[in-house]
Amino acid sequence: MDDLVKAVLRFRDERDWRQFHNPKDLAISISLEAAELLEQFQWKNPAEVESFLAVPENRRRVGEEMADVLILLISLADAVGLDLAETARRKLLENARKYPVERAKGNAKKYDALAP
Amino acid sequence: MDDLVKAVLRFRDERDWRQFHNPKDLAISISLEAAELLEQFQWKNPAEVESFLAVPENRRRVGEEMADVLILLISLADAVGLDLAETARRKLLENARKYPVERAKGNAKKYDALAP
Amino acid sequence: MDDLVKAVLRFRDERDWRQFHNPKDLAISISLEAAELLEQFQWKNPAEVESFLAVPENRRRVGEEMADVLILLISLADAVGLDLAETARRKLLENARKYPVERAKGNAKKYDALAP
Amino acid sequence: MDDLVKAVLRFRDERDWRQFHNPKDLAISISLEAAELLEQFQWKNPAEVESFLAVPENRRRVGEEMADVLILLISLADAVGLDLAETARRKLLENARKYPVERAKGNAKKYDALAP
Repeated sequence: MDDLVKAVLRFRDERDWRQFHNPKDLAISISLEAAELLEQFQWKNPAEVESFLAVPENRRRVGEEMADVLILLISLADAVGLDLAETARRKLLENARKYPVERAKGNAKKYDALAP
Repeated sequence: MDDLVKAVLRFRDERDWRQFHNPKDLAISISLEAAELLEQFQWKNPAEVESFLAVPENRRRVGEEMADVLILLISLADAVGLDLAETARRKLLENARKYPVERAKGNAKKYDALAP
Repeated sequence: MDDLVKAVLRFRDERDWRQFHNPKDLAISISLEAAELLEQFQWKNPAEVESFLAVPENRRRVGEEMADVLILLISLADAVGLDLAETARRKLLENARKYPVERAKGNAKKYDALAP
Repeated sequence: MDDLVKAVLRFRDERDWRQFHNPKDLAISISLEAAELLEQFQWKNPAEVESFLAVPENRRRVGEEMADVLILLISLADAVGLDLAETARRKLLENARKYPVERAKGNAKKYDALAP
């Protein structure tokens, strides 16, 4: 992750793009790239998703859209002054408290709807 | 990144949630979490974004939404069979070809609108 | 539609909210409300969607999210100086040209992928 | 609105597209079209939005994206069995209760944050 973060920031700085990277527009971009990712699955039922993803070119395209989201997340984390990986690790710990294994196992219900 | 990926997949597998993680619904979730991230900046002008982010509790909240997106990206990468970090590295190389430093420097125009 | 447009603009003006309605933030809001609408269907397969929508309270909730999108569309149309209904009618005519009945019938392919 | 609804449903039925219009995929499409609308405003500050919208061709493009959202909303309302205009009218009444004029006037705060 460290290497990837460095590469993303180097790419940005070599192009003097830091000046454009205000947090609000980066958040908009993340949302738009997430939509382009979702677009790959639009109008497809599970069987169609599966055969779509069996084609390497399609899987590569899906990967590109995911990469765009990740690259922008890294840019936003830097603009906001957050350590993205550390933030995700803390969120996982919090999720583990919200969804204890014994109650969440095999259960997709939202944590606040889980039986106490 | 490797450790984070392992932690995300362990969290999922301890809860038997792999069965729910079809690619289309994961892509929907990424899009919804990206919207929750964007919501933090809604109706705020640049000065308001800045003072909002100066409050640690707000920055923590923004970090949580970013973490949700990243955790889901990692889950989708696994469901689709992609190495997320490697995919992002390849995308950066491709972006470097599309936006050569000498033409893109200080220029926010979309690559296909850059002068040849 | 005319009555609805008038009611939306009257609601806004009685509260002096015109000043907040810049096009970019309205477009963000439309996107966020569309996400809340989509959230209603998250993680549900077709059978689950059907039984979810058979419950009046759920259908009411879906309707509320759709109403939020429509109210914001009307607000944006006013902020931008467009007649929303007229714009939609023109778009339908354009779509009719792109997807001629004889080729599009029963065929979900994107128009540019339709056989000539 | 009635005429527009009829035109949208006639367009759909002439092409036998009712079969593809399941609520979940329609909600996805609404979200994707809302993203395309938002994309028009990406990376633009208020002055840039204004000069962008002063160009008729750009305003036309924005209108097309708005029309796509509205046409899909109408399709979803039909698929779900809701009267879209009536639903929006009821939502406006509910909003009027949540945001009473005397407290909401000139105040953009979310209703639940308004002083009692």
